[in-house]
Amino acid sequence: MKNISQSLTNPLIVLVGVVFSLSSSAQTRESGPWWPNAQWGAEDQAGASNRITEEKVIEALRLVTLGKIYELGQIYEQGMPLYGTRTYSMVLPAKGPAAGDNRIVSNEEFLSAQIGQVGTQFDGLGHVGQEVMMDDSSTEYVFYNGFTAGEMDTPSGLQKLGIEHVKPIITRGVLIDVATYKGVPRLPNSYEVTVEDVLGALERQGMSAADVRPGDAVLFRYGWSSLWDQPDAYNLNAPGIGLAVARWVIERQVTMIGSDTYTTEVDPNPESRLVFPVHQELMMKNGIFNLENMQFDELVADGADEFLFIVTPIRFKGATGSPVRPIAIR
Amino acid sequence: MKNISQSLTNPLIVLVGVVFSLSSSAQTRESGPWWPNAQWGAEDQAGASNRITEEKVIEALRLVTLGKIYELGQIYEQGMPLYGTRTYSMVLPAKGPAAGDNRIVSNEEFLSAQIGQVGTQFDGLGHVGQEVMMDDSSTEYVFYNGFTAGEMDTPSGLQKLGIEHVKPIITRGVLIDVATYKGVPRLPNSYEVTVEDVLGALERQGMSAADVRPGDAVLFRYGWSSLWDQPDAYNLNAPGIGLAVARWVIERQVTMIGSDTYTTEVDPNPESRLVFPVHQELMMKNGIFNLENMQFDELVADGADEFLFIVTPIRFKGATGSPVRPIAIR
Amino acid sequence: MKNISQSLTNPLIVLVGVVFSLSSSAQTRESGPWWPNAQWGAEDQAGASNRITEEKVIEALRLVTLGKIYELGQIYEQGMPLYGTRTYSMVLPAKGPAAGDNRIVSNEEFLSAQIGQVGTQFDGLGHVGQEVMMDDSSTEYVFYNGFTAGEMDTPSGLQKLGIEHVKPIITRGVLIDVATYKGVPRLPNSYEVTVEDVLGALERQGMSAADVRPGDAVLFRYGWSSLWDQPDAYNLNAPGIGLAVARWVIERQVTMIGSDTYTTEVDPNPESRLVFPVHQELMMKNGIFNLENMQFDELVADGADEFLFIVTPIRFKGATGSPVRPIAIR
Amino acid sequence: MKNISQSLTNPLIVLVGVVFSLSSSAQTRESGPWWPNAQWGAEDQAGASNRITEEKVIEALRLVTLGKIYELGQIYEQGMPLYGTRTYSMVLPAKGPAAGDNRIVSNEEFLSAQIGQVGTQFDGLGHVGQEVMMDDSSTEYVFYNGFTAGEMDTPSGLQKLGIEHVKPIITRGVLIDVATYKGVPRLPNSYEVTVEDVLGALERQGMSAADVRPGDAVLFRYGWSSLWDQPDAYNLNAPGIGLAVARWVIERQVTMIGSDTYTTEVDPNPESRLVFPVHQELMMKNGIFNLENMQFDELVADGADEFLFIVTPIRFKGATGSPVRPIAIR
Repeated sequence: MKNISQSLTNPLIVLVGVVFSLSSSAQTRESGPWWPNAQWGAEDQAGASNRITEEKVIEALRLVTLGKIYELGQIYEQGMPLYGTRTYSMVLPAKGPAAGDNRIVSNEEFLSAQIGQVGTQFDGLGHVGQEVMMDDSSTEYVFYNGFTAGEMDTPSGLQKLGIEHVKPIITRGVLIDVATYKGVPRLPNSYEVTVEDVLGALERQGMSAADVRPGDAVLFRYGWSSLWDQPDAYNLNAPGIGLAVARWVIERQVTMIGSDTYTTEVDPNPESRLVFPVHQELMMKNGIFNLENMQFDELVADGADEFLFIVTPIRFKGATGSPVRPIAIR
Repeated sequence: MKNISQSLTNPLIVLVGVVFSLSSSAQTRESGPWWPNAQWGAEDQAGASNRITEEKVIEALRLVTLGKIYELGQIYEQGMPLYGTRTYSMVLPAKGPAAGDNRIVSNEEFLSAQIGQVGTQFDGLGHVGQEVMMDDSSTEYVFYNGFTAGEMDTPSGLQKLGIEHVKPIITRGVLIDVATYKGVPRLPNSYEVTVEDVLGALERQGMSAADVRPGDAVLFRYGWSSLWDQPDAYNLNAPGIGLAVARWVIERQVTMIGSDTYTTEVDPNPESRLVFPVHQELMMKNGIFNLENMQFDELVADGADEFLFIVTPIRFKGATGSPVRPIAIR
Repeated sequence: MKNISQSLTNPLIVLVGVVFSLSSSAQTRESGPWWPNAQWGAEDQAGASNRITEEKVIEALRLVTLGKIYELGQIYEQGMPLYGTRTYSMVLPAKGPAAGDNRIVSNEEFLSAQIGQVGTQFDGLGHVGQEVMMDDSSTEYVFYNGFTAGEMDTPSGLQKLGIEHVKPIITRGVLIDVATYKGVPRLPNSYEVTVEDVLGALERQGMSAADVRPGDAVLFRYGWSSLWDQPDAYNLNAPGIGLAVARWVIERQVTMIGSDTYTTEVDPNPESRLVFPVHQELMMKNGIFNLENMQFDELVADGADEFLFIVTPIRFKGATGSPVRPIAIR
Repeated sequence: MKNISQSLTNPLIVLVGVVFSLSSSAQTRESGPWWPNAQWGAEDQAGASNRITEEKVIEALRLVTLGKIYELGQIYEQGMPLYGTRTYSMVLPAKGPAAGDNRIVSNEEFLSAQIGQVGTQFDGLGHVGQEVMMDDSSTEYVFYNGFTAGEMDTPSGLQKLGIEHVKPIITRGVLIDVATYKGVPRLPNSYEVTVEDVLGALERQGMSAADVRPGDAVLFRYGWSSLWDQPDAYNLNAPGIGLAVARWVIERQVTMIGSDTYTTEVDPNPESRLVFPVHQELMMKNGIFNLENMQFDELVADGADEFLFIVTPIRFKGATGSPVRPIAIR
């Protein structure tokens, strides 16, 4: 009897070439379906942050003429939208007694959270993988560069692909304002942004596909951050890119993408048998990072779409992601 | 009967002019001993990060010629040195089942910690204050710009002086390598770095006091990070600057200081009646930030002492500090 | 000018004798308004759990004839009703590798919560206090037996009145089924249970006031636990006892009360200037404990209203309360 | 080539009959090596707590003549011994403002911990399992009654064998004071308590094997709790029972065992290829619970060895264990 999974997924492979059959013939750490394509070696854990070369840093810094800094993230606080059953809880402990003749007193906070997956969050390469059938008929959870859950998981964090391996992102940033291109303040629920939309938005900004260059950070504006103060609405059926645009950004050899939704990709995927496939396509197969829950209000107010982009994921050893404070400078 | 505290602290006032008597005559939100000097207005919560002007950003970016990035922080992990009874605990939850034809699986971490006061930590202005006697003879805990605990504290964080008010630090960085100047790999326990040491170290580097400019980040290297893997030794009796050097950096109008110890200032203070007085002097009275638990190995290897310095505290609303990933770029 | 607070609260003092004016004349640790009445000494931290004498234990055990155990609590889980901004988050970390020839593997959970104030919660004596004007015109937060926040608070827990001081509750339990007496499955929102209701409910059960004895646990059934799976409805405007019934249970010299709501007392109080006054009346002034978020389904099904009652607060040092698993045995 | 694991473990099977080969022929949920022996049905999740029948409860209650309560647990606090990298962190948040004319103020604590595996801890049936080779040559992690990790694990807790399924333990308790029998205040490091020791200790107490009855809680005193305030010494090389005594208690059909060490069983096991095999033998294969980190000071002072024993694990849904407050009553 034919493998059901295979029969379902094969047409998808024909269509977009991105989904693997569970029965592919050569699934090992050394010869899986995608990691031979990894350009940075079999042991690489930095993914597309390797594209931030010294030349790229210089290119990016040279974009700055004003010295003006733009905040591109949200503030982290209890009550902000949290995906699924995630938690964000911070308390301020009581102060101890004043000490010394200088009567010093001090505060510190205590925070509990899925720290790399709350608020403005930088997804690392240990966040998303795929269940794959291996040569010996067992199944394994496989992540970027062929690292498996068996190699990665410990109770206290990831031994491989932890966020600490990602290099600081100091690069050229390009904002692609899809919402404005489409003439709406906010894209509709579950709208899939097409390659045509992307090219149209670039054209409106006086740019073209050639203006998205290797190593760049590409930021998609859907207008969704206006829902940030409505957590239930925010975390439901967001618009976003699908596999077609994912392929396009992969071809552009960018370092990362980002957006003003909780997933960057359209939710749910129009192909209902697929669950967040863009995450796999970008991160697992190509090492390209994804920064979620951004906001672009200040950039839009200034009509800015090309800038020095800075984001420095905190090096929590073995974490799947990081809270960050992304900024643009012009 | 004379106030004991007053009689004890007055000599200190004479000596260094930085410690307030508990019986000072005019302690209110509007007319306390230090906040009238605040240059950024009575409601300011950003402190010396206000010194990062557009011009300062441009000045800093222009320092870069190579595009080479240096990590200046430590990796956060269980077992790293933690001060006092602080906690850093991260776990990796079990994965849920694979979903969709694309068999996606995902990880996320759960972290509990005094998040802004562990590891490489950027102290915000709500971290340290002073117990002060107010006009009505009550005592209050007073922080930067005269904000009081009564105004600031809630169970879930600070309402004033939270770390979210600090502006991104994109500035000129200067490393002052005191250990190398003193000819030791690591300064001795509880050694107080003097102004002469600072000037001597600058001279060794071909610089002078004039090379520490308004808005700069001044980083002191004591050689202490070599103890990072020995938590008990690391967190005990660190060398560091005292009140004299604190006054010197205040005069230089810097944005922040930093170092490779858990406190940046000498511990304990040679004046045994004072407990971490440099923290109060810099942060509470002058809004100057302090970044602890850094490391400068790569900078030293390259002989680098002037660079673009970037640190972006995470905007955890109402937190006293932030984990950060400080970098230098040359 | 007359103290506003005094003029407002005096009528209440006349009515029920339970609310103190902020301007009372003799507020100190030794001579406050209520603690001289504490029967267990000035240093007592166990409150009414002192009423569980050996004789009381024997009396309670003798009630058992069947050996049948009843669960009186709720199960703790993410998604249960949480009051205010409290958090309950549990994750199951990934397993480490199997060890030894016996291939042992193990699990452990990680939980973050306001542990003593979530789910079925036993309120300790450090939970609720009152801001009081002291002799020197300063204000203090005062708790059971006159302990003050100044004496109690540390960043890592209470130094006085922590839950660890409460003795195990092994006593006679009496269920007072107010809902059934009132002929409703669930009392209406914000209904204040009166002394008449309590006496009527006892009479319906063939009991009288004399059947509530010193040392007992008195459990009020309002029918509210049927809303447990509707967190928003559950935590809003619950019915419950007011100050009149509070006085009645204090006179009965019970050890604790409990109920199937989040507060046991009517919310809001019909006297709108008072916020949860029953909590103060019982715990702060009389050392009588309060166990919230119980359920009595099995007891009601069996028509049981008198039983051995067992609840053993976990001795988390310095905590304000405890999760518990209260049971009845008949 | 012969399976190494098989060749190593077979002699053990001969010796004690408790360790399974990884290549056993019939490993499925329905026909594994041990679960057919489970007396409480294929879906049972309560294990030996099923032995707490109504008759057993009555038997236990009848032991009480004095009404005297004994604490058998430790207090939970930061700094207590924690096994491995576990965490126990509690903070007391700042109070909010006083509310109402009654000026109510309140405290609550925030706790983060491996809640069921810290301090005096009641191990549930989801805590320990075994990696087993299944019929299809895959390996699975198998727990009590054949439940597998695949069936049990979710990111937010166990779907099977969570601690909430354990019935309240109200039973007869027997203390076996091995340390006193051996004439030492504390058994030596890594001493394996033998069946002869157990029988000798019982004889010294005027009891025999027949005095350990079905449904009992059997508590072993090793004298180890005197090290509780020395965490490093406490958590290293504890004495305890081995597989021989484990078999003996299984034959006695008890509900649970307990002790004054972190594991109850000898550490390390004298058979160096085995890692905590008593945990598997008792819990995984026989559903018998294990309560660790107890103390018996008061019982010993009174020469008490038979009593009503009460422990009520908190019903944290999906947890592997629970903090508890075990008590004895005579």
